[in-house]
Amino acid sequence: MNGTGTGTVSESEQYWKFRGNEEVNKSSISIRGTLNLVRKNVNGDDPRPLILFGRADPSEFPCFPTSPSVIEALANAVLSSNFNSYPTSHGLPPARSALAEYLSNSLPYQLSPNDVFLTIGCTQAIEIIISVLARPGVNILLPRPAYPHYESRAAFGNLEVRHFNLMPEKSWEVDLDAVKALADNNTVAMVIINPNNPCGSVYTYQHLKEIAETARKLGIFLISDEVYAHMAFGTKPFVPMGEFGSIVPVLTLGSLSKRWIVPGWRLGWILTTDPNGILEKHGIVESIKNYLDITPDPPTFIQGALPQILAKTSAEFFSDFLDTMGENASILYEKINEIPCFTCPNKPEGAILAMVKLNLEQLEGISDDVDFCSKVAKEESVLILPGVAVGWKNWLRMSFGMERSSIEDGLARLKSFCERHTSPKRLPH
Amino acid sequence: MNGTGTGTVSESEQYWKFRGNEEVNKSSISIRGTLNLVRKNVNGDDPRPLILFGRADPSEFPCFPTSPSVIEALANAVLSSNFNSYPTSHGLPPARSALAEYLSNSLPYQLSPNDVFLTIGCTQAIEIIISVLARPGVNILLPRPAYPHYESRAAFGNLEVRHFNLMPEKSWEVDLDAVKALADNNTVAMVIINPNNPCGSVYTYQHLKEIAETARKLGIFLISDEVYAHMAFGTKPFVPMGEFGSIVPVLTLGSLSKRWIVPGWRLGWILTTDPNGILEKHGIVESIKNYLDITPDPPTFIQGALPQILAKTSAEFFSDFLDTMGENASILYEKINEIPCFTCPNKPEGAILAMVKLNLEQLEGISDDVDFCSKVAKEESVLILPGVAVGWKNWLRMSFGMERSSIEDGLARLKSFCERHTSPKRLPH
Repeated sequence: MNGTGTGTVSESEQYWKFRGNEEVNKSSISIRGTLNLVRKNVNGDDPRPLILFGRADPSEFPCFPTSPSVIEALANAVLSSNFNSYPTSHGLPPARSALAEYLSNSLPYQLSPNDVFLTIGCTQAIEIIISVLARPGVNILLPRPAYPHYESRAAFGNLEVRHFNLMPEKSWEVDLDAVKALADNNTVAMVIINPNNPCGSVYTYQHLKEIAETARKLGIFLISDEVYAHMAFGTKPFVPMGEFGSIVPVLTLGSLSKRWIVPGWRLGWILTTDPNGILEKHGIVESIKNYLDITPDPPTFIQGALPQILAKTSAEFFSDFLDTMGENASILYEKINEIPCFTCPNKPEGAILAMVKLNLEQLEGISDDVDFCSKVAKEESVLILPGVAVGWKNWLRMSFGMERSSIEDGLARLKSFCERHTSPKRLPH
Repeated sequence: MNGTGTGTVSESEQYWKFRGNEEVNKSSISIRGTLNLVRKNVNGDDPRPLILFGRADPSEFPCFPTSPSVIEALANAVLSSNFNSYPTSHGLPPARSALAEYLSNSLPYQLSPNDVFLTIGCTQAIEIIISVLARPGVNILLPRPAYPHYESRAAFGNLEVRHFNLMPEKSWEVDLDAVKALADNNTVAMVIINPNNPCGSVYTYQHLKEIAETARKLGIFLISDEVYAHMAFGTKPFVPMGEFGSIVPVLTLGSLSKRWIVPGWRLGWILTTDPNGILEKHGIVESIKNYLDITPDPPTFIQGALPQILAKTSAEFFSDFLDTMGENASILYEKINEIPCFTCPNKPEGAILAMVKLNLEQLEGISDDVDFCSKVAKEESVLILPGVAVGWKNWLRMSFGMERSSIEDGLARLKSFCERHTSPKRLPH
């Protein structure tokens, strides 16, 4: 022991044996981490309101309240005092039953309550799946661009990831040739996100079926992130991947966050949409249950409120929200393409997000997407997520889940920014 | 690709490349997992109510409601609709400020809001700390017996653990000689639980100071699990380990669960009780923040309610609960020691738990603690946690956080069970 007097020990950095964890520090790629860095550039003296294209959270705007029936359901569960005890580890049975019933309505077969596991938002659902899959030597296939939490949890769990591209020229469909080329005998699963974060695309029935058939040929299962389920306002209806559960086993991830406009409530789920029970036979379900035993549960009262939340939310609430998002998507798509330094190749048809290409050759003194977002934050009080945070450098991820007036204000500021920073050689003669 | 026709593939178990994760399966040692196994023995035809000595959850009994002001604070936060958005990653600033202020009242120095990180119950706080510490080659020191979540998360994270015993003959104090013998240059931290789960002991100021001095000599920091903070009803007052934060850096873990009787609400915290900022200097705080970026947050509305919860809970609510627990502890301690096959060496002075030795030589046909608990569940509808689940074989962990009538009923059934199973050679002649 090399400690001596009281005064000296706390001053000597060498003395203490602990230190931070580089593996954790390297793994923590997150949207909010990146946004916090960009946000530091905002000029506090700018009198204009901050425009938040960077966050996918309409609940921050008073024009997007959740349904009053949903608030009432949760408040009643709290006031009942019936849900103060520890929950059971896979979710309260009435909550699991109600959710299985509700989600079965969109599927060609009936789910059992045992197919449903409640989680703390979709974030924890991702953590659970990645933890279950992280065995030495195996790999999973992730889309690029994608929601970065898959990447972070895989890095933390030392799970190898391989990336297949989504194709902007084909409505951001999955490059299935790339998938086939990437997979080997150690590949165990593949992630798809539909409706897509960050691209705002919605996959056709046919494309989803091709994905299912490809995965089946490869002997891998699908992780279908449907946190934006049913949020499709274009020409393509939303089709749950579980539709093809008899072709290939599917784990479906979902949440109240987006469709019910309550991301802060943190209620999500993992579903086994696998009518042949292959995930059960191969031990995946057992490992999910075991992991659930050593990870926190969603608060009991929100589980208690779930049956009422599902029963009482009107179809009109969902359709009104969708209509607004459809209109917002059109405004963003049209106006952003009027600004020469941007290209949005596909009009978003779902979710609340679009990927926009930054035409760097049009701009002077902007080195990349992070530099662009930092300068826009500083000069225009507009917060945008650099594409690099979703694995797609020199693009931008933009949310249209906000008030129309904010979208228009933000786009006007972006236009002004781009005019000021246009490369002279691109100016009209 | 070895897949052929549609019909055959799903039938062939060999075909699919994925399987469960043995590492996860082996890590999932949990109290609820063990209790679920024991519970399977309960005879459904027994008309008597099940007595739950196995669970530390008074909220399951109508005689232990939380404070109405606490329910009101949470319901108001929900009804306000101000807390539906994603939270910030270390907790809402007003919640962090209120908690820092509240916890400073028990410490000789003032905490800053930046010392406080909100977590999903103490369970997630443990997961975060263990994840931050899990670097190759390092080890931590855990008490035995202990709350098993430390063990599970360390096993999952491949973090080596070394066990020091608590000493029943010395009021379950830490065996500091064992601590010194176990530590080496790769030891980074040591866990203490005070008031103690599972022993119901409360450490003296002097013993805590000795622990702090020992840790300082070893160059390691302390993780002080104070989920039962202030729940001391014996002769020793509760002293937070942070009292000694200037001797050794302390990470304190806490939660609303126990003291506010709302374990299902899942609100906990990690505190840096470290006035010299050593955890910050050595990168521990940075890694905690980075891990918080890739793990779910407590729901926003409960964070929103926290300032009111802390401000509005009366001293009387806490003292009434403590008085009842003190009386319950006395009843359990006295009556259990009247049954020859049990010995409870120390009257519990805190928390809601006691460790009881099973005198196996008094019993016939009972092989160990698990066998005992299984047979008691079957024959008497009494659910007890076998000591092996907390690392202390052939003892029992018993909660007295329940109605007095249930304690008395349960003890009468245990007495009757033991009389029926007493070894003939121990019967009086």
